[in-house]
Amino acid sequence: MPTPLDAIRTDTTIDPHKIGNLLFDPGYRETRIRIASILSSDQVFDKSLRPHLNHRQLLHLSLRIFKRLLELRDAHGWSDLEFALACRLQDESLPTSLHDAAFVPVIASHGTQEQQAYWLPRCKRYEVVGCYAQTELAHGSNVQELETAARFDVTSGEFVISSPRLESTKWWIGGLGVMANHTIVQAVLYLPLPGNPLEYKSYGPHLFIVPVRSLKTHEPLPGITIGDIGPKVYGGVGMVDNGYVQFREVRIPRENMLMRHAQVMLTGEYVRPAHDKLSYGSMIALRSGIPVNLGWSLARAVTIALRYCIHRRQFAVTPDGPEQPVITYSGVKHRLYPLLALSYAYIITGRELWSMYQEMLEEVQRGNMESLAEMHSLSVALKVKSSTDCAKGLEEARKCMGGHGYSHMSGVGPLFANATASQTYEDTLASQPLTPPSHYPNVKRKGDNHVISQQTTRSLLKHISALRSSSSSPTSLNSISRSSSGSSASSRSSTSSLSSSSSASTEHHLPLSSSYLINTLLAPAQFYTQRSSVKTSSDWYSSTHQLSALEHRAAYLILELSASLSSTSTPQNWSSHTHTTHQIASAHADIFVATTFCKSVARVGSSNLLPDDCVYALRLLCDIFCLSTLVAGLPELFESGFVNPTQARLLRRALDEAVLIRMDVGSAVALTDAFAFTGFEMAGSVLGRGDGRVYEGMWRTVREGESGKESEFLEECLEITGHYRGRRRNAKL
Amino acid sequence: MPTPLDAIRTDTTIDPHKIGNLLFDPGYRETRIRIASILSSDQVFDKSLRPHLNHRQLLHLSLRIFKRLLELRDAHGWSDLEFALACRLQDESLPTSLHDAAFVPVIASHGTQEQQAYWLPRCKRYEVVGCYAQTELAHGSNVQELETAARFDVTSGEFVISSPRLESTKWWIGGLGVMANHTIVQAVLYLPLPGNPLEYKSYGPHLFIVPVRSLKTHEPLPGITIGDIGPKVYGGVGMVDNGYVQFREVRIPRENMLMRHAQVMLTGEYVRPAHDKLSYGSMIALRSGIPVNLGWSLARAVTIALRYCIHRRQFAVTPDGPEQPVITYSGVKHRLYPLLALSYAYIITGRELWSMYQEMLEEVQRGNMESLAEMHSLSVALKVKSSTDCAKGLEEARKCMGGHGYSHMSGVGPLFANATASQTYEDTLASQPLTPPSHYPNVKRKGDNHVISQQTTRSLLKHISALRSSSSSPTSLNSISRSSSGSSASSRSSTSSLSSSSSASTEHHLPLSSSYLINTLLAPAQFYTQRSSVKTSSDWYSSTHQLSALEHRAAYLILELSASLSSTSTPQNWSSHTHTTHQIASAHADIFVATTFCKSVARVGSSNLLPDDCVYALRLLCDIFCLSTLVAGLPELFESGFVNPTQARLLRRALDEAVLIRMDVGSAVALTDAFAFTGFEMAGSVLGRGDGRVYEGMWRTVREGESGKESEFLEECLEITGHYRGRRRNAKL
Repeated sequence: MPTPLDAIRTDTTIDPHKIGNLLFDPGYRETRIRIASILSSDQVFDKSLRPHLNHRQLLHLSLRIFKRLLELRDAHGWSDLEFALACRLQDESLPTSLHDAAFVPVIASHGTQEQQAYWLPRCKRYEVVGCYAQTELAHGSNVQELETAARFDVTSGEFVISSPRLESTKWWIGGLGVMANHTIVQAVLYLPLPGNPLEYKSYGPHLFIVPVRSLKTHEPLPGITIGDIGPKVYGGVGMVDNGYVQFREVRIPRENMLMRHAQVMLTGEYVRPAHDKLSYGSMIALRSGIPVNLGWSLARAVTIALRYCIHRRQFAVTPDGPEQPVITYSGVKHRLYPLLALSYAYIITGRELWSMYQEMLEEVQRGNMESLAEMHSLSVALKVKSSTDCAKGLEEARKCMGGHGYSHMSGVGPLFANATASQTYEDTLASQPLTPPSHYPNVKRKGDNHVISQQTTRSLLKHISALRSSSSSPTSLNSISRSSSGSSASSRSSTSSLSSSSSASTEHHLPLSSSYLINTLLAPAQFYTQRSSVKTSSDWYSSTHQLSALEHRAAYLILELSASLSSTSTPQNWSSHTHTTHQIASAHADIFVATTFCKSVARVGSSNLLPDDCVYALRLLCDIFCLSTLVAGLPELFESGFVNPTQARLLRRALDEAVLIRMDVGSAVALTDAFAFTGFEMAGSVLGRGDGRVYEGMWRTVREGESGKESEFLEECLEITGHYRGRRRNAKL
Repeated sequence: MPTPLDAIRTDTTIDPHKIGNLLFDPGYRETRIRIASILSSDQVFDKSLRPHLNHRQLLHLSLRIFKRLLELRDAHGWSDLEFALACRLQDESLPTSLHDAAFVPVIASHGTQEQQAYWLPRCKRYEVVGCYAQTELAHGSNVQELETAARFDVTSGEFVISSPRLESTKWWIGGLGVMANHTIVQAVLYLPLPGNPLEYKSYGPHLFIVPVRSLKTHEPLPGITIGDIGPKVYGGVGMVDNGYVQFREVRIPRENMLMRHAQVMLTGEYVRPAHDKLSYGSMIALRSGIPVNLGWSLARAVTIALRYCIHRRQFAVTPDGPEQPVITYSGVKHRLYPLLALSYAYIITGRELWSMYQEMLEEVQRGNMESLAEMHSLSVALKVKSSTDCAKGLEEARKCMGGHGYSHMSGVGPLFANATASQTYEDTLASQPLTPPSHYPNVKRKGDNHVISQQTTRSLLKHISALRSSSSSPTSLNSISRSSSGSSASSRSSTSSLSSSSSASTEHHLPLSSSYLINTLLAPAQFYTQRSSVKTSSDWYSSTHQLSALEHRAAYLILELSASLSSTSTPQNWSSHTHTTHQIASAHADIFVATTFCKSVARVGSSNLLPDDCVYALRLLCDIFCLSTLVAGLPELFESGFVNPTQARLLRRALDEAVLIRMDVGSAVALTDAFAFTGFEMAGSVLGRGDGRVYEGMWRTVREGESGKESEFLEECLEITGHYRGRRRNAKL
């Protein structure tokens, strides 16, 4: 008998594999299947065990897993890419993840040729396993205030690394807790004053390689106090040994400072980097990987939830009729389909962002620093928005599964537990880009969404003020009026790149992602009388209308902040205005995501790459993303006057129609099948089983798995039930 | 040197203890201090150990904890209330929690005098430890479809309990996994047809006491397959043994059916309950306890986050100036102060709901069933809204702590992990009312917020249709117009009760919580032209304006649904309309919460019970609650046309002013100090330490706690770093 899922699959003509071409690099799916099948046959990779383990047991497991992965790499002759994929298929970062994602790339980008020649081969053999120590106990976001010191001792030609006080302890360092024998340390460089070798001058944070554990015994080296900081909330990132380290006058050779850019000579002389910005060169790498990774995480959860909601039946529509699959309820569709759209949005946009990052890297290596600021601002906005949306979406997908969603058998727990961290950090905790970045960020500031979103906001404010101060000729104002009504459609039709918008003012070049800011040059009387021209609910299906509303919203929010910053009636200091920066960065990100998603769909639509039904499904998904994003933005659109009550009702009606009527369950299944998750990846989820045997799976899990050993509790239970029978006896003791 | 927190406390005149009088029953705080101090001295209650344990280890711990609590009860001669408090101070439900919260109360409310006399003394001695088995693998929300069967065998005078198929397995039953030796089972009663003893007729779900484990050996009894269902997501409810059980023809004596209401005679004859509704009598108990419990959970998280945000400094406002406490940032205030207001709102409203529930119980016991439906509908709405808000708020409070908030040392992890379950269930998982309910619900439907919110919605729709069909005289329409402009202020000024609103139509009596529905009688042309009369941002500080907007919003949403249900252009079946019921139930709840909060503050304000500064702080908190609730409701208020763009901006400005200017950190600290958390309760949180020694605490935790034993990983790490050195050797093996 076919399962409900099979029956749905038979009913749809949409080819998931073809849709998947939009999501994957060529050959990736095949490689994944091959590697997953190798992993499947090995007990150590069995994910069903993990929910039963505590943090320490998980650390043991993750070390065993990595050891086994090395063996398999040898046995199968895996390439670096294949090995990275095998690691990624573990679904969790490992104690070695930051070695590969941070330690090695930072040496590659910040080390001299000699340093690379010395360290990289040892790294590749995992003889040297390193991590990246930046955050301190008392300083995370504010990197300029880091306290760990690297004082140069001219006499011995060594650096002396020390933690001046408790608060300077390096903390949260992934891989440091138990695994790493080296770490790169962000420390403030102190050099003796020329002529007065007893006085030191600070040169700000620089990077040093510091050995922390013996290569021979793996015991901490002298002067090093080191360990694991313990479990994270919700059991998140449980297989990583986030650690702490304190340095007591630890001496390292001068050669351990990464000297590709700045240098310290034997004499103690400081040589500035040729390009001052070069050390920022690749600071955006990991952040740029976050949207695509979180998009994939959400994709998994949505796939699980959809399959379960097809299997699960509850309540009949007619008396004595059969119970209905939960997916037929409008409340479930309204929650699940927008999440499906969201996962596509972030996968597609994340891939775009990643290729923009690599494009930028090449520019930077050619000495062109122009696109750096834009890439920084945009990647911050996308990191903020994608981490907020995906964490929320993962928990929502779990709740769509009702009561059983709260069981570890849903398999969604770890996805949320890991993803939610990316709202307050930005590092590889939750992030493992498909392709390991070739360069790693010297992240100058990292952290909390509310903190970093200020950077996008400042950059947008800068654009506005540059526009204002440079542009006042009648010509440019004309072009603004045109572009505002036409919603800068022309700029969107160009291919994605970091190049400036053609419709922008001739004086100040706006990057494409910010071209809508041209609108902010309008006189307030003009800006605030702009109105959406939507007249019917189907107008809302037009990407021109969608995007112009999103653009107006972002421009409105920035103008409001700008006005309030220059108003005399509100406090002038920036810290009194930070509460809207998260919203501003998010609105800015929404435009980029919507534009990129629309453009990708338009591209496959016009190029005949996909059959019509696939294009239709993708276009619908894109509409669901845009419409639900607009619904979320209604308060701002109302306040600015851009959308009136009737248009808002039309918008909600358009979304209702898209979610409840246009999207059918067959297309939804095909769109999740397009993710092509292997059985190995889905093994962590009993509820997401594709074979329809969910309840049998749950039963087998409790009977054969780690549970069901309640006999070990007999004695303790009898002590309770026998307590009052035994009281007299106890009283005698 | 005083800590920053001390300095703030010295600066404020507000007396936390006096504010606390609004939150506690007399004497409660003193008892809590006394019991907490007893618990503090006992290692087994040390909460810092728990994050390091897996589910099985936590179960062992929780059994040891309960055993120790029994010993302390004996040693200190604790009353039932004191004992319940000692259990509650564990912060987690225990394997025995549902014995006290469900098994015992159900016997008390559904058992005959003889049954009570037999079972209750055994229960009190914990010789019999029971639980409450309703949910099955395939049926949670839809209780009418439960499958577990109780067939009466006339020959032997026994019931035969059986699980007809895998899907009928009882599942999720708290306390059943390892602890309970009895369970109450919801099973479908089958009685032989008179004259044809081989044919059976179903009488629907009834309650039976079934022994499941031997009193002597604690081994499962014959015919019983039983065990623990394993960990929950995020490590939630980790100290409870949620279990499963299958029955294979398990025979129990006829006396084990709870027969206070319906009865089965020896002959197999069925005797209907005198009042058909009596078995519903106290169905709302546990649900009514949820808002207050979640309010307290949020209160804890907000207290922790506020203290940490006062301690934590990051970034200077002026170059070379001192770094600012994080709490001075507007983004933090805007997130934290509304959460503080929310916790007060749910504690105060939850206490009100609980006393309404007890009032209703007395009514019901006097045979008056009138208020039952209203209490049901209202408690559903409040459960839905409070669980949604508090789960979200707990995670937000955690994120306010930035990076370190993700450490187990924040102490907020378990609060969220437990609370989020209450969005998809309604039972004691996350809920331990201060006073154990004297009667327990025969919960007819339980579960998911999206499912149960349909019940509030249906009840509101019923009111509307009853109003419409019964009221059309000019007089009543006059009174509507008046009440709509005056926002039924008259009805709100009456004391809280379940009695009908005086301003309601003479024909259909609206309960007080639904009095605003009178507005729905207006002609659409009238209703949709209603406008808020707010003109300045300070108008938004008036509770009349606040409440009339909240009332309009709820009425609007219900009218929209009602119109769409009767429209010919949309699908007619209910399941196509369920996506707005969550929103409707929430809007309905908001009115009750706002009304109750405003009334409580007005009461203490007018009665001189509190000094002026306390009243001011409470009134401000109430405003913050109402204003942020209104901001969240802006989309509906816009759509309905009730609020225009200018008024929306004024609303946001009012909230900004309340949060950023009016609320000072001294008042916020006093308002959290009013929660009077003991050191024992705060011990799970290093970040929330009141003594300002947060970083020392974190350091001590990693050095002296469960972490820091990284030496046990040496060998595994050396296997990795030595892998390629050892490869040749391995290859030989």
